[in-house]
Amino acid sequence: MKRKLSVGMIGYNFMGKAHSNAWRQAGRFFDLPAEIELTTICGRNTAAVEKARERFGWMKTRADWREVVADPGIDVIDITTPNDSHAEIAIEAAKHGKAVLCEKPLAMDVAECEAMVAAVKKAGVVNMVCHNYRRIPAIALAKQMIEAGEIGDRIFHYRARYAQDWITNPQFPLVWRLQSKIAGSGTHGDIDAHIIDLGRYLVGEIKEVCGVMETFIKERPLENAPKKFGKVTVDDAVSWIGRFKNGALANLEATRFAHGRKNHITIEINGSKGSLAFNFEDMNRLEFYKADDPEGRRGFRSILVTEGKHPYAGAWWPPGHIIGYEHTFANTFADFVKAVVAGKSVQPTFTDGLANQRVLDAIAQSAKTRQWIRI
Amino acid sequence: MKRKLSVGMIGYNFMGKAHSNAWRQAGRFFDLPAEIELTTICGRNTAAVEKARERFGWMKTRADWREVVADPGIDVIDITTPNDSHAEIAIEAAKHGKAVLCEKPLAMDVAECEAMVAAVKKAGVVNMVCHNYRRIPAIALAKQMIEAGEIGDRIFHYRARYAQDWITNPQFPLVWRLQSKIAGSGTHGDIDAHIIDLGRYLVGEIKEVCGVMETFIKERPLENAPKKFGKVTVDDAVSWIGRFKNGALANLEATRFAHGRKNHITIEINGSKGSLAFNFEDMNRLEFYKADDPEGRRGFRSILVTEGKHPYAGAWWPPGHIIGYEHTFANTFADFVKAVVAGKSVQPTFTDGLANQRVLDAIAQSAKTRQWIRI
Amino acid sequence: MKRKLSVGMIGYNFMGKAHSNAWRQAGRFFDLPAEIELTTICGRNTAAVEKARERFGWMKTRADWREVVADPGIDVIDITTPNDSHAEIAIEAAKHGKAVLCEKPLAMDVAECEAMVAAVKKAGVVNMVCHNYRRIPAIALAKQMIEAGEIGDRIFHYRARYAQDWITNPQFPLVWRLQSKIAGSGTHGDIDAHIIDLGRYLVGEIKEVCGVMETFIKERPLENAPKKFGKVTVDDAVSWIGRFKNGALANLEATRFAHGRKNHITIEINGSKGSLAFNFEDMNRLEFYKADDPEGRRGFRSILVTEGKHPYAGAWWPPGHIIGYEHTFANTFADFVKAVVAGKSVQPTFTDGLANQRVLDAIAQSAKTRQWIRI
Amino acid sequence: MKRKLSVGMIGYNFMGKAHSNAWRQAGRFFDLPAEIELTTICGRNTAAVEKARERFGWMKTRADWREVVADPGIDVIDITTPNDSHAEIAIEAAKHGKAVLCEKPLAMDVAECEAMVAAVKKAGVVNMVCHNYRRIPAIALAKQMIEAGEIGDRIFHYRARYAQDWITNPQFPLVWRLQSKIAGSGTHGDIDAHIIDLGRYLVGEIKEVCGVMETFIKERPLENAPKKFGKVTVDDAVSWIGRFKNGALANLEATRFAHGRKNHITIEINGSKGSLAFNFEDMNRLEFYKADDPEGRRGFRSILVTEGKHPYAGAWWPPGHIIGYEHTFANTFADFVKAVVAGKSVQPTFTDGLANQRVLDAIAQSAKTRQWIRI
Repeated sequence: MKRKLSVGMIGYNFMGKAHSNAWRQAGRFFDLPAEIELTTICGRNTAAVEKARERFGWMKTRADWREVVADPGIDVIDITTPNDSHAEIAIEAAKHGKAVLCEKPLAMDVAECEAMVAAVKKAGVVNMVCHNYRRIPAIALAKQMIEAGEIGDRIFHYRARYAQDWITNPQFPLVWRLQSKIAGSGTHGDIDAHIIDLGRYLVGEIKEVCGVMETFIKERPLENAPKKFGKVTVDDAVSWIGRFKNGALANLEATRFAHGRKNHITIEINGSKGSLAFNFEDMNRLEFYKADDPEGRRGFRSILVTEGKHPYAGAWWPPGHIIGYEHTFANTFADFVKAVVAGKSVQPTFTDGLANQRVLDAIAQSAKTRQWIRI
Repeated sequence: MKRKLSVGMIGYNFMGKAHSNAWRQAGRFFDLPAEIELTTICGRNTAAVEKARERFGWMKTRADWREVVADPGIDVIDITTPNDSHAEIAIEAAKHGKAVLCEKPLAMDVAECEAMVAAVKKAGVVNMVCHNYRRIPAIALAKQMIEAGEIGDRIFHYRARYAQDWITNPQFPLVWRLQSKIAGSGTHGDIDAHIIDLGRYLVGEIKEVCGVMETFIKERPLENAPKKFGKVTVDDAVSWIGRFKNGALANLEATRFAHGRKNHITIEINGSKGSLAFNFEDMNRLEFYKADDPEGRRGFRSILVTEGKHPYAGAWWPPGHIIGYEHTFANTFADFVKAVVAGKSVQPTFTDGLANQRVLDAIAQSAKTRQWIRI
Repeated sequence: MKRKLSVGMIGYNFMGKAHSNAWRQAGRFFDLPAEIELTTICGRNTAAVEKARERFGWMKTRADWREVVADPGIDVIDITTPNDSHAEIAIEAAKHGKAVLCEKPLAMDVAECEAMVAAVKKAGVVNMVCHNYRRIPAIALAKQMIEAGEIGDRIFHYRARYAQDWITNPQFPLVWRLQSKIAGSGTHGDIDAHIIDLGRYLVGEIKEVCGVMETFIKERPLENAPKKFGKVTVDDAVSWIGRFKNGALANLEATRFAHGRKNHITIEINGSKGSLAFNFEDMNRLEFYKADDPEGRRGFRSILVTEGKHPYAGAWWPPGHIIGYEHTFANTFADFVKAVVAGKSVQPTFTDGLANQRVLDAIAQSAKTRQWIRI
Repeated sequence: MKRKLSVGMIGYNFMGKAHSNAWRQAGRFFDLPAEIELTTICGRNTAAVEKARERFGWMKTRADWREVVADPGIDVIDITTPNDSHAEIAIEAAKHGKAVLCEKPLAMDVAECEAMVAAVKKAGVVNMVCHNYRRIPAIALAKQMIEAGEIGDRIFHYRARYAQDWITNPQFPLVWRLQSKIAGSGTHGDIDAHIIDLGRYLVGEIKEVCGVMETFIKERPLENAPKKFGKVTVDDAVSWIGRFKNGALANLEATRFAHGRKNHITIEINGSKGSLAFNFEDMNRLEFYKADDPEGRRGFRSILVTEGKHPYAGAWWPPGHIIGYEHTFANTFADFVKAVVAGKSVQPTFTDGLANQRVLDAIAQSAKTRQWIRI
């Protein structure tokens, strides 16, 4: 009989919904070495948490995350709270020997991340930062192809953009994501973090960066008192250039001010033997240009990444029957469950979260000092 | 406390997987008036059914569908078996007063469909044929727009194609879907049925048809004896023209011989004030051309149908975070659950399944007699 | 020194503009064995012709085409008049030993076409019907690829649509193209003719057809008396199915009632080893799916047909610097000039025009009799 | 009778071909106030120039540009030579009172540009730098829309990329474009210059920049001695961030190392009321997102910029009959001819060329010093 894996999830909002779904679904589509139990969901607002428990399918609720983390019946702590509490919860969970899955960005700054990495290393617990986009089948396929040399042994360019438009209206209120005390940063930690992570995953470590950050709308109505205005203390957009250690150039941009772009992640990677391109809003496709296709027959191939041969795709539906956003979490959690049972972390670990944070911090510092920063 | 709705599902293969998922997920994302219980999964191969039960999350198994249909603890019978058993099961389920959800095509021919419609009417049970594509958000939006007159009060063209490529290889074996005794027809009942249904849903009833059906590969290896060949007794492709009662022209094609097209449903509807276009492989979009946009600013708008304002989309994820194939079932089952609780069927009912079958039969007859057929 | 080729062009409107441009440009981009001289432009409206002469770059004008055809100084007669005068002019030109280039459709019906073919054969003159779309580089490349077996030795489907929207407004007047006496037919001879020709060119001869034709707007304002209405005597749309001699299925549609489609020619061809797809509004691309690409790496390749290796493209601009509609004429006329000098017609000849007309007539007859028609 | 405008063109290679075509074609499609005469084509290689003369349609040749510039029969000097000779020729032409059209980049550096601006101002001659992409109909339309406030009164982002792949192969020889002495820079002056110009045209003046330039392949075979290698002295790619004076962020990249991108200019502009997007490889389209479209009906509109209402498009072909690369020159030259006759320069003048050069120089300096540079 299969081992049972009890999960305690801290947080219950948007990410709580996405994570709950992944916990429920992973074992339905993947052959996992353990049965997942959605044991405890935790949040301070008792009524809201109870509602979430019922809707998302958890067994019980807790108001204090310390109880969950200390609960000997819990195997895995899943952190989906705002960024400012990640470090404390994760470190405490590690101390209690729990496997820890933490939403990105790993924490508020490099110091916090380092403490988290130290904690999971010391405790020897399996850990993962939830960069779910690594396990979009098209991205996982891109990784396989790059490792196999299919776009050549040298990469020239990594170009990525993460564009949204949900705060373009100046009347949009000053939610927590626009307050640096809670969110750390704006687009930077929220969405730039994703395309930085994908860059590190697909291309390699980043050597140096130079960036600019901008807050287009400086003041916004308060959430609970819409006639009063408060200061926006995070970035609305970030744009940066840089170099990878392997010599590739980086050009990235993240913004919440691109009308018409909803969750628009576009990536292009140019190598010495070919190119890859990706667009999240059509996320089941990977565009692949193969320079050694016969002359006159070259062109970007639009690979519909829904076949058994493709990573993760075989677990879902037949070719052409596309999957969506939520599946990236289920794919991720399936790998995490295997890692927990095997007792060996899989990428992206907290160490990846830390490495990402170093890049994030360097860009922020660059934007402030108007200097190139080496990482 | 919420009423419980017990489901018994007959069949457990591809459609069983899709339906199980929808039963599990519908209540997690929609506010439903009943709690869904995945009570019984049924199939003749005991070991396979037990495996499906565990994987898909059902409480118990049965080998004989008659037991499930007769079980007083079951409220809903969900039929996902091959087409030749739909009628018998549905009629028996109706007799036992069960609400019935039946995979498409409703049955093997018009006579069977008529018997099914008579049975559910006599029993007064809620019934639905699972044309899940009606509840793709983009399609549901198209329906709203057409009803609101957004493409005009007159429709000129309905053009649709459902193209796949999974049997292009002549070595692909003679599976049940290629045998008329079990499947009834090939592309016709399997995929042409879907775009016929969407035509009836979006444009209206069809008046007359003229079609051609073709079997490109006449013989194929047997599944269990690959050196022997058996006759393919269904169509590999069907192509037809016709007229709707409202004067619109119809042009439809379904094929399993279009290399590179995996689950490629493309639709275009041209009205007197605009056009709509859709492609399933990018199913979160609806293309909309509005003829009374200002001159010089007209163009197909690519609407990413993932916003709260859009049908079904609000239940899922934020704008730009796309959904996939499986969600069309969850959307459908959520409406079905509401219908069962309300005691009133919602579209598409068995009567729709019958109407579709009349069109399917007319096209098949036309292909045989090389005549136009009035419906 | 190069031989000079004197051209006399009958007609001076839209096609006159396109042809004049091609006569001027062909020799600037292709290495031709003769120098083209735009000698005479001919039309009954003296003032309009004089204006056209100056604008389009011709040396002199004539009002009577018989003079031009009889002029010993003219080598080539180019016919761009409305369809009802093609036969008479072409036959007379042939009698005078001129090479003849005639706009499509070749004539009003099969009888006229037969007379034209007989005339050019008897006279032994080089002849061509101006199906300019054959020499879109992407189409010419498709032809090469099909002949080389790149999509397999068997073709299953030819699917094409030619959609426009310029007469969707019921107030659009009763121009000559909407009058059967002058135009012969509507969408059928004007635009269906093009995709029929491309089908014959790319796939082969057509065996049998069954079609429907529709006039959505039955009466329209007269051009010179907009308060009076006249009867529309041609088709607004035509839709048909058929079979090629090689067993491929045909599905074609032509319409002037597709809002948002301006000059929208879409083609898809599915063969036993791959598929090709094309869209005129992005005419520099050919989509190519190659079934024997490695598993997991298959997808439609978007070939930008602008390289030296591609047919005709090398004569124009560097890769990625796209060409447009008018270049299809220049490509065609370059080949025609070579044919005239060589004394040997190249495709598509009047015989092709006749073969196309047989298909056109068969479809029209089918639409009238509601029968399948063998060709 | 119309005035005649005699053109003398210096240079006869790729740009010579494009310019000759535009001189020949402009008057055929636009109503111009003067008749253009292709009088003299000039180049040092007598045989090559004679061949070009005949092919491109010029009346006579000259080997020494000074003779052309001094020729009293010449009204317009058109400069299509490599970048290092632009300044000298233009200044001399201005001294002789000629109208001057000069290929971009205007010159090798700011100093040269300043001298050129001074010369044309002193001489009072009409002048233009040939940034032909400004007169792509889709770009000209974008300009109109931005000026009319259609994307709002505030612009947040200008993002552009110009990607090619023609020197990706390390065996590609050391042509003049890869030598700084002749070309000045690589991608920077050649293609980055275009998207900088479009940024200035569409968004406004640039305030500050920070960039990186890279030469991926440091040495290449010599053109005439392929076994010997020479140093590549220009950039293979340039990537930069910056700010416009109006507060918009700039993110630009130009590269010749993007496999699969042939002449790939992609632009996106995000404003407070909407967005615009453009891709040169499908240059007849402009994507337009209008934020105040009704909720649920928003999406990027794909405007096919081929209608009479659209800038320049009406001169060419009917809607949907697309134009290509070469037409951007004809559109430009038509406006230039009108400007010459009117005696009043139109954008982009040498002053624009100088302003562009200031940005180019600032980026180059930034790349060298690793500092932000104010302009």
